[in-house]
Amino acid sequence: MILVDGHPREWILVSDRGLQYGDGLFETLAVRDGRIRHWQGHWRRLLEGCRRLGIEPPREEIVQEEVLRVGEGPERRVVKVVITRGAGGRGYAPPAVVSPTRIVSGHPWPAWPREFAQEGVALHLCRTALGDNPTLAGIKHLNRLEQVLARGEWDDPRVPEGLMRTLDGRPVCGTMSNLFLHCDGRLVTPTLDRCGIRGVTRAEVLGAARSEGIQVEEIPCSMAMLERAEEVFLTNSIIGIWPVRALGDVHRWRAGPWARRLGEWVESQW
Amino acid sequence: MILVDGHPREWILVSDRGLQYGDGLFETLAVRDGRIRHWQGHWRRLLEGCRRLGIEPPREEIVQEEVLRVGEGPERRVVKVVITRGAGGRGYAPPAVVSPTRIVSGHPWPAWPREFAQEGVALHLCRTALGDNPTLAGIKHLNRLEQVLARGEWDDPRVPEGLMRTLDGRPVCGTMSNLFLHCDGRLVTPTLDRCGIRGVTRAEVLGAARSEGIQVEEIPCSMAMLERAEEVFLTNSIIGIWPVRALGDVHRWRAGPWARRLGEWVESQW
Repeated sequence: MILVDGHPREWILVSDRGLQYGDGLFETLAVRDGRIRHWQGHWRRLLEGCRRLGIEPPREEIVQEEVLRVGEGPERRVVKVVITRGAGGRGYAPPAVVSPTRIVSGHPWPAWPREFAQEGVALHLCRTALGDNPTLAGIKHLNRLEQVLARGEWDDPRVPEGLMRTLDGRPVCGTMSNLFLHCDGRLVTPTLDRCGIRGVTRAEVLGAARSEGIQVEEIPCSMAMLERAEEVFLTNSIIGIWPVRALGDVHRWRAGPWARRLGEWVESQW
Repeated sequence: MILVDGHPREWILVSDRGLQYGDGLFETLAVRDGRIRHWQGHWRRLLEGCRRLGIEPPREEIVQEEVLRVGEGPERRVVKVVITRGAGGRGYAPPAVVSPTRIVSGHPWPAWPREFAQEGVALHLCRTALGDNPTLAGIKHLNRLEQVLARGEWDDPRVPEGLMRTLDGRPVCGTMSNLFLHCDGRLVTPTLDRCGIRGVTRAEVLGAARSEGIQVEEIPCSMAMLERAEEVFLTNSIIGIWPVRALGDVHRWRAGPWARRLGEWVESQW
Protein backbone atom coordinates (compact mmCIF):
# COMPACT_ATOMS: atom_id res chain seq x y z
CA MET A 1 0.00 0.00 0.00
CA ILE A 2 1.08 3.56 -0.76
CA LEU A 3 -0.29 6.64 1.00
CA VAL A 4 0.26 10.02 -0.63
CA ASP A 5 -0.58 12.80 1.83
CA GLY A 6 -2.62 10.25 3.72
CA HIS A 7 -4.64 8.96 0.77
CA PRO A 8 -4.21 5.52 -0.82
CA ARG A 9 -2.71 6.49 -4.18
CA GLU A 10 0.06 5.23 -6.45
CA TRP A 11 0.94 8.45 -8.25
CA ILE A 12 2.29 11.96 -7.76
CA LEU A 13 2.11 15.05 -9.96
CA VAL A 14 4.76 15.41 -12.68
CA SER A 15 5.32 18.92 -11.29
CA ASP A 16 6.42 17.50 -7.92
CA ARG A 17 9.89 18.80 -7.14
CA GLY A 18 10.89 15.37 -5.87
CA LEU A 19 10.81 14.23 -9.51
CA GLN A 20 11.96 17.46 -11.14
CA TYR A 21 15.04 18.03 -8.96
CA GLY A 22 15.30 15.26 -6.36
CA ASP A 23 14.16 18.01 -3.99
CA GLY A 24 13.35 15.96 -0.91
CA LEU A 25 14.33 13.33 1.63
CA PHE A 26 13.54 9.75 2.58
CA GLU A 27 13.73 7.23 5.40
CA THR A 28 13.63 3.44 5.23
CA LEU A 29 12.10 1.82 8.30
CA ALA A 30 11.84 -1.67 9.76
CA VAL A 31 8.34 -2.35 11.12
CA ARG A 32 7.10 -5.36 13.09
CA ASP A 33 4.06 -5.98 15.28
CA GLY A 34 3.08 -2.32 15.35
CA ARG A 35 6.59 -1.15 16.28
CA ILE A 36 9.05 0.91 14.26
CA ARG A 37 12.66 0.05 15.02
CA HIS A 38 14.69 3.10 16.13
CA TRP A 39 11.88 5.51 15.30
CA GLN A 40 13.38 8.39 17.28
CA GLY A 41 16.63 8.17 15.32
CA HIS A 42 14.83 8.14 11.98
CA TRP A 43 12.57 11.00 12.97
CA ARG A 44 15.50 13.13 14.16
CA ARG A 45 17.39 12.56 10.89
CA LEU A 46 14.31 13.46 8.85
CA LEU A 47 13.89 16.69 10.86
CA GLU A 48 17.57 17.51 10.39
CA GLY A 49 17.22 16.90 6.63
CA CYS A 50 14.12 19.13 6.45
CA ARG A 51 16.00 21.85 8.35
CA ARG A 52 18.99 21.70 6.02
CA LEU A 53 16.89 21.70 2.84
CA GLY A 54 14.41 24.27 4.15
CA ILE A 55 11.42 21.94 3.81
CA GLU A 56 8.57 22.24 6.30
CA PRO A 57 8.58 18.96 8.26
CA PRO A 58 5.40 16.89 8.58
CA ARG A 59 3.84 16.23 11.99
CA GLU A 60 5.48 13.31 13.77
CA GLU A 61 2.28 11.58 14.87
CA ILE A 62 0.87 11.66 11.33
CA VAL A 63 3.96 10.06 9.80
CA GLN A 64 4.17 7.50 12.58
CA GLU A 65 0.51 6.55 12.20
CA GLU A 66 0.89 6.16 8.42
CA VAL A 67 4.06 4.10 8.77
CA LEU A 68 2.26 1.68 11.09
CA ARG A 69 -0.73 1.56 8.75
CA VAL A 70 1.26 0.49 5.66
CA GLY A 71 3.54 -1.64 7.85
CA GLU A 72 0.72 -3.79 9.22
CA GLY A 73 0.77 -7.54 8.77
CA PRO A 74 1.92 -10.83 10.22
CA GLU A 75 5.48 -10.42 8.83
CA ARG A 76 8.17 -7.79 9.27
CA ARG A 77 7.73 -5.01 6.71
CA VAL A 78 9.93 -2.35 5.13
CA VAL A 79 8.32 1.09 5.05
CA LYS A 80 9.73 3.93 3.02
CA VAL A 81 8.83 7.55 3.82
CA VAL A 82 9.53 10.19 1.17
CA ILE A 83 9.06 13.90 1.91
CA THR A 84 9.42 16.25 -1.06
CA ARG A 85 9.27 20.04 -1.07
CA GLY A 86 5.99 19.68 -2.98
CA ALA A 87 4.69 20.50 -6.45
CA GLY A 88 5.31 23.62 -8.41
CA GLY A 89 7.61 26.43 -9.34
CA ARG A 90 9.28 26.66 -12.75
CA GLY A 91 13.02 26.53 -12.23
CA TYR A 92 15.18 25.75 -9.25
CA ALA A 93 13.90 28.48 -6.89
CA PRO A 94 11.82 26.94 -4.10
CA PRO A 95 8.32 28.48 -4.36
CA ALA A 96 7.44 30.96 -1.59
CA VAL A 97 4.25 29.02 -0.85
CA VAL A 98 4.46 25.27 -1.29
CA SER A 99 2.98 22.29 0.47
CA PRO A 100 5.34 19.32 1.00
CA THR A 101 4.35 15.92 -0.40
CA ARG A 102 4.34 12.97 2.02
CA ILE A 103 4.64 9.48 0.55
CA VAL A 104 4.54 6.41 2.78
CA SER A 105 4.84 2.99 1.13
CA GLY A 106 5.00 -0.56 2.51
CA HIS A 107 7.18 -3.32 1.02
CA PRO A 108 7.88 -6.99 1.80
CA TRP A 109 10.92 -7.76 3.94
CA PRO A 110 13.86 -8.68 1.63
CA ALA A 111 14.60 -12.40 1.42
CA TRP A 112 18.29 -12.21 2.34
CA PRO A 113 19.92 -15.61 3.05
CA ARG A 114 20.40 -16.12 6.79
CA GLU A 115 24.14 -16.69 6.26
CA PHE A 116 24.66 -13.04 5.29
CA ALA A 117 24.12 -12.02 8.92
CA GLN A 118 25.76 -15.11 10.40
CA GLU A 119 28.84 -15.83 8.29
CA GLY A 120 29.14 -12.51 6.53
CA VAL A 121 28.97 -11.17 2.99
CA ALA A 122 31.27 -10.60 0.04
CA LEU A 123 31.51 -7.03 -1.21
CA HIS A 124 32.00 -5.68 -4.69
CA LEU A 125 34.61 -2.88 -4.83
CA CYS A 126 32.77 -0.06 -6.59
CA ARG A 127 34.50 2.00 -9.26
CA THR A 128 31.91 4.78 -8.91
CA ALA A 129 33.26 7.14 -6.27
CA LEU A 130 31.25 9.24 -3.85
CA GLY A 131 31.62 12.88 -4.83
CA ASP A 132 32.76 15.51 -2.35
CA ASN A 133 29.79 17.54 -1.16
CA PRO A 134 29.72 18.94 2.40
CA THR A 135 26.41 20.76 1.76
CA LEU A 136 24.50 17.53 1.26
CA ALA A 137 26.63 15.07 3.25
CA GLY A 138 24.97 13.12 6.05
CA ILE A 139 21.30 13.61 5.21
CA LYS A 140 19.18 11.07 3.33
CA HIS A 141 18.17 13.24 0.37
CA LEU A 142 16.70 12.11 -2.93
CA ASN A 143 19.80 12.81 -5.09
CA ARG A 144 21.01 9.22 -5.21
CA LEU A 145 22.49 8.74 -8.68
CA GLU A 146 25.91 7.87 -7.26
CA GLN A 147 24.40 4.92 -5.39
CA VAL A 148 22.37 3.84 -8.43
CA LEU A 149 25.46 3.85 -10.67
CA ALA A 150 27.58 2.06 -8.06
CA ARG A 151 24.91 -0.59 -7.45
CA GLY A 152 24.56 -1.08 -11.21
CA GLU A 153 28.21 -2.16 -11.51
CA TRP A 154 27.55 -5.80 -10.58
CA ASP A 155 24.69 -8.25 -10.72
CA ASP A 156 25.59 -11.28 -8.61
CA PRO A 157 22.93 -12.21 -6.02
CA ARG A 158 25.65 -13.76 -3.84
CA VAL A 159 27.26 -10.32 -3.54
CA PRO A 160 24.64 -8.18 -1.81
CA GLU A 161 26.58 -4.97 -1.31
CA GLY A 162 29.45 -2.86 -2.68
CA LEU A 163 32.10 -0.75 -0.98
CA MET A 164 32.18 2.90 -2.00
CA ARG A 165 35.21 5.15 -1.69
CA THR A 166 35.80 8.89 -1.73
CA LEU A 167 37.42 10.56 -4.74
CA ASP A 168 40.81 10.10 -3.07
CA GLY A 169 40.21 6.40 -2.49
CA ARG A 170 39.18 6.24 1.18
CA PRO A 171 36.59 3.59 2.05
CA VAL A 172 33.49 5.33 3.34
CA CYS A 173 30.32 3.20 3.17
CA GLY A 174 28.34 0.64 1.20
CA THR A 175 25.82 1.66 -1.46
CA MET A 176 23.07 1.26 1.15
CA SER A 177 24.96 0.74 4.42
CA ASN A 178 27.54 2.22 6.78
CA LEU A 179 30.96 0.72 7.38
CA PHE A 180 32.62 -0.31 10.67
CA LEU A 181 36.11 -1.64 11.30
CA HIS A 182 37.44 -3.41 14.35
CA CYS A 183 40.94 -2.08 13.94
CA ASP A 184 43.85 -1.55 16.34
CA GLY A 185 41.66 -2.44 19.31
CA ARG A 186 39.01 0.20 18.57
CA LEU A 187 35.71 0.32 16.72
CA VAL A 188 36.17 2.74 13.82
CA THR A 189 33.66 4.15 11.37
CA PRO A 190 34.42 6.68 8.61
CA THR A 191 33.54 10.36 9.12
CA LEU A 192 30.67 11.50 6.91
CA ASP A 193 31.15 15.25 6.71
CA ARG A 194 31.93 15.32 2.95
CA CYS A 195 29.81 12.45 1.58
CA GLY A 196 27.68 9.51 2.66
CA ILE A 197 24.56 9.18 4.80
CA ARG A 198 24.61 9.32 8.59
CA GLY A 199 22.88 6.01 9.21
CA VAL A 200 20.43 5.58 12.07
CA THR A 201 21.70 2.06 12.81
CA ARG A 202 25.25 3.45 12.61
CA ALA A 203 24.44 5.91 15.40
CA GLU A 204 22.69 3.25 17.49
CA VAL A 205 25.61 0.84 17.09
CA LEU A 206 28.08 3.56 18.06
CA GLY A 207 26.02 4.20 21.19
CA ALA A 208 25.67 0.52 22.06
CA ALA A 209 29.40 -0.08 21.57
CA ARG A 210 30.27 2.86 23.82
CA SER A 211 27.97 1.62 26.55
CA GLU A 212 29.65 -1.79 26.34
CA GLY A 213 32.97 -0.07 27.04
CA ILE A 214 34.30 -0.41 23.48
CA GLN A 215 36.50 2.48 22.36
CA VAL A 216 34.82 4.14 19.40
CA GLU A 217 36.21 6.57 16.81
CA GLU A 218 34.76 8.44 13.85
CA ILE A 219 37.76 9.22 11.65
CA PRO A 220 38.70 9.25 7.96
CA CYS A 221 39.63 5.64 7.15
CA SER A 222 42.09 4.23 4.64
CA MET A 223 42.19 1.05 2.59
CA ALA A 224 45.21 0.02 4.69
CA MET A 225 43.09 0.20 7.85
CA LEU A 226 40.39 -1.85 6.16
CA GLU A 227 42.94 -4.45 5.10
CA ARG A 228 44.46 -4.85 8.53
CA ALA A 229 41.10 -4.76 10.37
CA GLU A 230 40.28 -7.81 12.52
CA GLU A 231 36.58 -7.41 11.74
CA VAL A 232 34.70 -5.47 9.10
CA PHE A 233 30.93 -5.06 9.18
CA LEU A 234 28.07 -3.08 7.67
CA THR A 235 25.01 -1.54 9.28
CA ASN A 236 21.64 -0.60 7.81
CA SER A 237 18.16 -0.21 9.25
CA ILE A 238 16.80 -3.29 7.51
CA ILE A 239 19.78 -5.67 7.49
CA GLY A 240 20.93 -4.76 11.00
CA ILE A 241 24.55 -5.90 10.89
CA TRP A 242 26.29 -7.91 8.18
CA PRO A 243 29.85 -9.02 8.85
CA VAL A 244 32.09 -8.70 5.78
CA ARG A 245 34.21 -11.68 4.80
CA ALA A 246 35.47 -10.70 1.35
CA LEU A 247 36.14 -7.69 -0.84
CA GLY A 248 36.25 -8.57 -4.53
CA ASP A 249 38.31 -11.73 -4.84
CA VAL A 250 40.10 -11.25 -1.56
CA HIS A 251 38.77 -13.37 1.32
CA ARG A 252 40.23 -11.75 4.35
CA TRP A 253 37.89 -11.51 7.34
CA ARG A 254 35.60 -13.63 9.51
CA ALA A 255 32.46 -12.75 11.36
CA GLY A 256 33.97 -11.67 14.68
CA PRO A 257 32.81 -11.12 18.25
CA TRP A 258 32.00 -7.41 17.95
CA ALA A 259 29.85 -7.86 14.85
CA ARG A 260 28.07 -10.76 16.56
CA ARG A 261 27.44 -8.96 19.83
CA LEU A 262 26.32 -5.70 18.22
CA GLY A 263 24.25 -7.59 15.63
CA GLU A 264 22.40 -9.41 18.40
CA TRP A 265 21.89 -6.10 20.16
CA VAL A 266 20.32 -4.55 17.01
CA GLU A 267 18.05 -7.59 16.61
CA SER A 268 16.90 -7.10 20.22
CA GLN A 269 15.76 -3.55 19.43
CA TRP A 270 12.27 -4.35 18.18
CA MET B 1 0.14 20.35 -21.65
CA ILE B 2 2.10 17.40 -20.32
CA LEU B 3 2.68 14.15 -22.23
CA VAL B 4 3.80 11.09 -20.28
CA ASP B 5 4.97 8.36 -22.67
CA GLY B 6 2.95 10.13 -25.33
CA HIS B 7 -0.33 10.38 -23.39
CA PRO B 8 -1.76 13.63 -21.99
CA ARG B 9 -1.32 13.04 -18.26
CA GLU B 10 -0.19 15.06 -15.25
CA TRP B 11 1.12 12.25 -13.04
CA ILE B 12 3.74 9.52 -12.77
CA LEU B 13 3.91 6.44 -10.57
CA VAL B 14 5.35 6.87 -7.07
CA SER B 15 7.62 3.92 -7.92
CA ASP B 16 9.24 5.87 -10.78
CA ARG B 17 12.98 5.98 -10.18
CA GLY B 18 13.03 9.61 -11.24
CA LEU B 19 11.26 10.39 -7.96
CA GLN B 20 12.85 7.70 -5.80
CA TYR B 21 16.48 8.43 -6.71
CA GLY B 22 16.62 11.27 -9.23
CA ASP B 23 17.48 8.48 -11.66
CA GLY B 24 17.12 10.32 -14.95
CA LEU B 25 17.92 13.28 -17.17
CA PHE B 26 16.29 16.39 -18.59
CA GLU B 27 16.54 18.99 -21.32
CA THR B 28 15.01 22.47 -21.45
CA LEU B 29 14.20 23.62 -24.98
CA ALA B 30 13.22 26.86 -26.68
CA VAL B 31 10.44 26.31 -29.24
CA ARG B 32 8.96 28.78 -31.73
CA ASP B 33 6.90 28.41 -34.91
CA GLY B 34 7.41 24.66 -35.06
CA ARG B 35 11.19 24.92 -34.60
CA ILE B 36 13.34 23.77 -31.68
CA ARG B 37 16.42 25.92 -31.17
CA HIS B 38 19.66 23.89 -31.29
CA TRP B 39 17.82 20.58 -31.34
CA GLN B 40 20.86 18.60 -32.45
CA GLY B 41 22.89 19.83 -29.48
CA HIS B 42 20.14 18.98 -27.01
CA TRP B 43 19.58 15.59 -28.54
CA ARG B 44 23.30 14.75 -28.46
CA ARG B 45 23.57 15.74 -24.78
CA LEU B 46 20.51 13.65 -23.91
CA LEU B 47 22.03 10.64 -25.71
CA GLU B 48 25.33 11.18 -23.89
CA GLY B 49 23.48 11.36 -20.55
CA CYS B 50 21.56 8.15 -21.34
CA ARG B 51 24.83 6.44 -22.24
CA ARG B 52 26.53 7.51 -19.02
CA LEU B 53 23.59 6.52 -16.80
CA GLY B 54 22.87 3.32 -18.74
CA ILE B 55 19.32 4.37 -19.64
CA GLU B 56 17.85 3.23 -22.94
CA PRO B 57 17.37 6.40 -24.99
CA PRO B 58 13.99 7.20 -26.56
CA ARG B 59 13.60 7.49 -30.33
CA GLU B 60 14.60 10.90 -31.63
CA GLU B 61 11.60 11.44 -33.91
CA ILE B 62 9.15 10.62 -31.10
CA VAL B 63 10.70 13.12 -28.69
CA GLN B 64 10.93 15.77 -31.39
CA GLU B 65 7.30 15.29 -32.38
CA GLU B 66 6.13 15.52 -28.75
CA VAL B 67 8.25 18.62 -28.10
CA LEU B 68 6.64 20.37 -31.08
CA ARG B 69 3.17 19.24 -29.96
CA VAL B 70 3.43 20.74 -26.44
CA GLY B 71 5.40 23.70 -27.82
CA GLU B 72 2.68 24.76 -30.25
CA GLY B 73 1.18 28.25 -30.09
CA PRO B 74 1.51 31.83 -31.28
CA GLU B 75 4.23 32.63 -28.70
CA ARG B 76 7.64 31.18 -27.96
CA ARG B 77 7.37 28.27 -25.51
CA VAL B 78 9.68 26.50 -23.09
CA VAL B 79 9.51 22.70 -23.35
CA LYS B 80 11.04 20.43 -20.74
CA VAL B 81 11.87 16.81 -21.57
CA VAL B 82 12.48 14.43 -18.65
CA ILE B 83 13.69 10.87 -19.24
CA THR B 84 13.80 8.60 -16.19
CA ARG B 85 15.04 5.01 -15.96
CA GLY B 86 11.40 4.04 -15.38
CA ALA B 87 9.35 2.57 -12.55
CA GLY B 88 10.32 -0.24 -10.28
CA GLY B 89 13.00 -2.08 -8.41
CA ARG B 90 13.33 -1.93 -4.63
CA GLY B 91 16.68 -0.43 -3.80
CA TYR B 92 19.31 1.29 -5.88
CA ALA B 93 20.04 -1.54 -8.34
CA PRO B 94 18.67 -0.68 -11.77
CA PRO B 95 16.12 -3.41 -12.66
CA ALA B 96 17.24 -5.82 -15.40
CA VAL B 97 14.06 -5.11 -17.33
CA VAL B 98 12.73 -1.59 -17.11
CA SER B 99 10.97 0.76 -19.48
CA PRO B 100 12.14 4.40 -19.34
CA THR B 101 9.56 7.11 -18.61
CA ARG B 102 9.34 10.02 -21.08
CA ILE B 103 7.79 13.27 -19.85
CA VAL B 104 7.39 16.24 -22.19
CA SER B 105 5.81 19.41 -20.79
CA GLY B 106 5.15 22.86 -22.26
CA HIS B 107 5.51 26.10 -20.30
CA PRO B 108 5.06 29.83 -21.03
CA TRP B 109 8.14 31.80 -22.00
CA PRO B 110 9.53 33.56 -18.88
CA ALA B 111 8.74 37.27 -18.67
CA TRP B 112 12.32 38.50 -18.20
CA PRO B 113 12.73 42.30 -18.52
CA ARG B 114 14.29 43.19 -21.87
CA GLU B 115 17.12 45.05 -20.11
CA PHE B 116 18.56 41.78 -18.76
CA ALA B 117 19.74 40.88 -22.27
CA GLN B 118 20.56 44.45 -23.27
CA GLU B 119 22.20 46.10 -20.28
CA GLY B 120 23.05 43.01 -18.28
CA VAL B 121 22.13 41.45 -14.95
CA ALA B 122 23.28 41.58 -11.34
CA LEU B 123 24.33 38.24 -9.84
CA HIS B 124 24.01 36.94 -6.33
CA LEU B 125 27.23 35.28 -5.08
CA CYS B 126 26.03 31.85 -3.90
CA ARG B 127 27.34 30.39 -0.65
CA THR B 128 26.23 26.90 -1.70
CA ALA B 129 29.20 25.36 -3.52
CA LEU B 130 29.08 22.85 -6.35
CA GLY B 131 30.37 19.53 -5.06
CA ASP B 132 33.17 17.67 -6.78
CA ASN B 133 31.79 14.79 -8.81
CA PRO B 134 33.50 13.70 -12.05
CA THR B 135 31.08 10.77 -12.49
CA LEU B 136 28.08 13.05 -12.93
CA ALA B 137 29.74 16.24 -14.20
CA GLY B 138 28.60 17.64 -17.54
CA ILE B 139 25.30 15.80 -18.02
CA LYS B 140 21.89 17.26 -17.19
CA HIS B 141 20.76 14.67 -14.64
CA LEU B 142 17.90 14.96 -12.16
CA ASN B 143 20.05 15.30 -8.99
CA ARG B 144 19.74 19.06 -8.71
CA LEU B 145 19.62 19.80 -4.98
CA GLU B 146 22.77 21.95 -5.16
CA GLN B 147 21.07 24.26 -7.64
CA VAL B 148 17.84 24.32 -5.59
CA LEU B 149 19.71 25.29 -2.42
CA ALA B 150 21.82 27.88 -4.23
CA ARG B 151 18.76 29.42 -5.93
CA GLY B 152 16.96 29.52 -2.57
CA GLU B 153 19.60 31.81 -1.08
CA TRP B 154 18.03 35.02 -2.43
CA ASP B 155 14.64 36.26 -3.50
CA ASP B 156 15.08 39.54 -5.35
CA PRO B 157 13.36 39.61 -8.78
CA ARG B 158 15.92 42.20 -9.94
CA VAL B 159 18.66 39.60 -9.41
CA PRO B 160 17.78 36.78 -11.81
CA GLU B 161 20.81 34.54 -11.35
CA GLY B 162 23.55 33.53 -8.92
CA LEU B 163 27.20 32.66 -9.42
CA MET B 164 28.23 29.22 -8.18
CA ARG B 165 31.78 28.25 -7.24
CA THR B 166 33.63 24.98 -6.73
CA LEU B 167 34.56 23.80 -3.24
CA ASP B 168 37.91 25.57 -3.63
CA GLY B 169 36.25 28.83 -4.63
CA ARG B 170 36.62 28.85 -8.42
CA PRO B 171 33.73 30.45 -10.34
CA VAL B 172 32.15 27.81 -12.54
CA CYS B 173 28.59 28.62 -13.63
CA GLY B 174 25.24 30.15 -12.67
CA THR B 175 22.51 28.10 -11.02
CA MET B 176 20.92 27.64 -14.47
CA SER B 177 23.51 29.04 -16.88
CA ASN B 178 27.10 28.77 -18.05
CA LEU B 179 29.72 31.45 -17.51
CA PHE B 180 31.94 33.22 -20.05
CA LEU B 181 34.69 35.77 -19.49
CA HIS B 182 36.29 38.12 -21.99
CA CYS B 183 39.65 38.12 -20.28
CA ASP B 184 43.19 38.85 -21.44
CA GLY B 185 42.02 39.08 -25.07
CA ARG B 186 40.44 35.61 -25.11
CA LEU B 187 36.99 34.18 -24.55
CA VAL B 188 37.24 31.90 -21.52
CA THR B 189 34.72 29.50 -20.02
CA PRO B 190 35.31 27.23 -17.01
CA THR B 191 36.08 23.54 -17.55
CA LEU B 192 33.22 21.28 -16.44
CA ASP B 193 34.92 17.95 -15.81
CA ARG B 194 34.29 17.92 -12.04
CA CYS B 195 30.93 19.71 -11.70
CA GLY B 196 28.41 21.76 -13.66
CA ILE B 197 26.37 21.08 -16.78
CA ARG B 198 27.82 21.21 -20.29
CA GLY B 199 25.32 23.71 -21.71
CA VAL B 200 24.08 23.41 -25.28
CA THR B 201 24.16 27.19 -25.78
CA ARG B 202 27.65 27.18 -24.22
CA ALA B 203 28.85 24.80 -26.94
CA GLU B 204 27.10 26.77 -29.69
CA VAL B 205 28.60 30.05 -28.46
CA LEU B 206 32.07 28.49 -28.30
CA GLY B 207 31.65 27.36 -31.91
CA ALA B 208 30.32 30.71 -33.09
CA ALA B 209 33.13 32.60 -31.35
CA ARG B 210 35.76 30.33 -32.93
CA SER B 211 34.31 30.83 -36.38
CA GLU B 212 34.44 34.62 -35.83
CA GLY B 213 38.15 34.27 -35.17
CA ILE B 214 37.91 34.82 -31.41
CA GLN B 215 40.47 32.85 -29.38
CA VAL B 216 38.56 30.48 -27.10
CA GLU B 217 39.72 28.55 -24.04
CA GLU B 218 38.10 26.08 -21.65
CA ILE B 219 40.19 26.29 -18.48
CA PRO B 220 39.70 26.34 -14.70
CA CYS B 221 38.90 29.98 -13.87
CA SER B 222 39.63 32.01 -10.75
CA MET B 223 37.82 34.87 -9.02
CA ALA B 224 40.81 37.06 -9.98
CA MET B 225 40.16 36.34 -13.68
CA LEU B 226 36.50 37.15 -13.19
CA GLU B 227 37.35 40.43 -11.48
CA ARG B 228 39.75 41.60 -14.17
CA ALA B 229 37.55 40.43 -17.08
CA GLU B 230 36.49 43.09 -19.59
CA GLU B 231 33.18 41.33 -20.14
CA VAL B 232 31.31 38.66 -18.22
CA PHE B 233 28.24 36.92 -19.59
CA LEU B 234 25.96 33.93 -19.07
CA THR B 235 24.45 31.51 -21.57
CA ASN B 236 21.36 29.32 -21.31
CA SER B 237 19.02 27.77 -23.87
CA ILE B 238 16.12 30.03 -22.93
CA ILE B 239 17.81 33.32 -22.02
CA GLY B 240 20.37 33.13 -24.83
CA ILE B 241 23.04 35.50 -23.53
CA TRP B 242 22.85 37.82 -20.52
CA PRO B 243 25.77 40.18 -19.95
CA VAL B 244 26.71 40.48 -16.27
CA ARG B 245 27.09 43.96 -14.81
CA ALA B 246 27.33 43.28 -11.08
CA LEU B 247 28.22 40.55 -8.60
CA GLY B 248 26.69 41.17 -5.17
CA ASP B 249 27.22 44.86 -4.37
CA VAL B 250 30.11 45.28 -6.77
CA HIS B 251 29.21 46.96 -10.07
CA ARG B 252 32.12 46.17 -12.27
CA TRP B 253 31.26 45.31 -15.86
CA ARG B 254 29.29 46.58 -18.84
CA ALA B 255 27.55 44.77 -21.64
CA GLY B 256 30.42 44.56 -24.14
CA PRO B 257 30.90 43.85 -27.85
CA TRP B 258 31.43 40.09 -27.58
CA ALA B 259 28.30 39.53 -25.48
CA ARG B 260 26.32 41.69 -27.89
CA ARG B 261 27.60 40.00 -31.06
CA LEU B 262 27.25 36.47 -29.71
CA GLY B 263 23.86 37.29 -28.17
CA GLU B 264 22.58 38.51 -31.54
CA TRP B 265 23.98 35.36 -33.13
CA VAL B 266 22.07 33.14 -30.64
CA GLU B 267 18.87 35.11 -31.29
CA SER B 268 19.33 34.48 -35.04
CA GLN B 269 19.38 30.72 -34.43
CA TRP B 270 15.62 30.07 -34.58
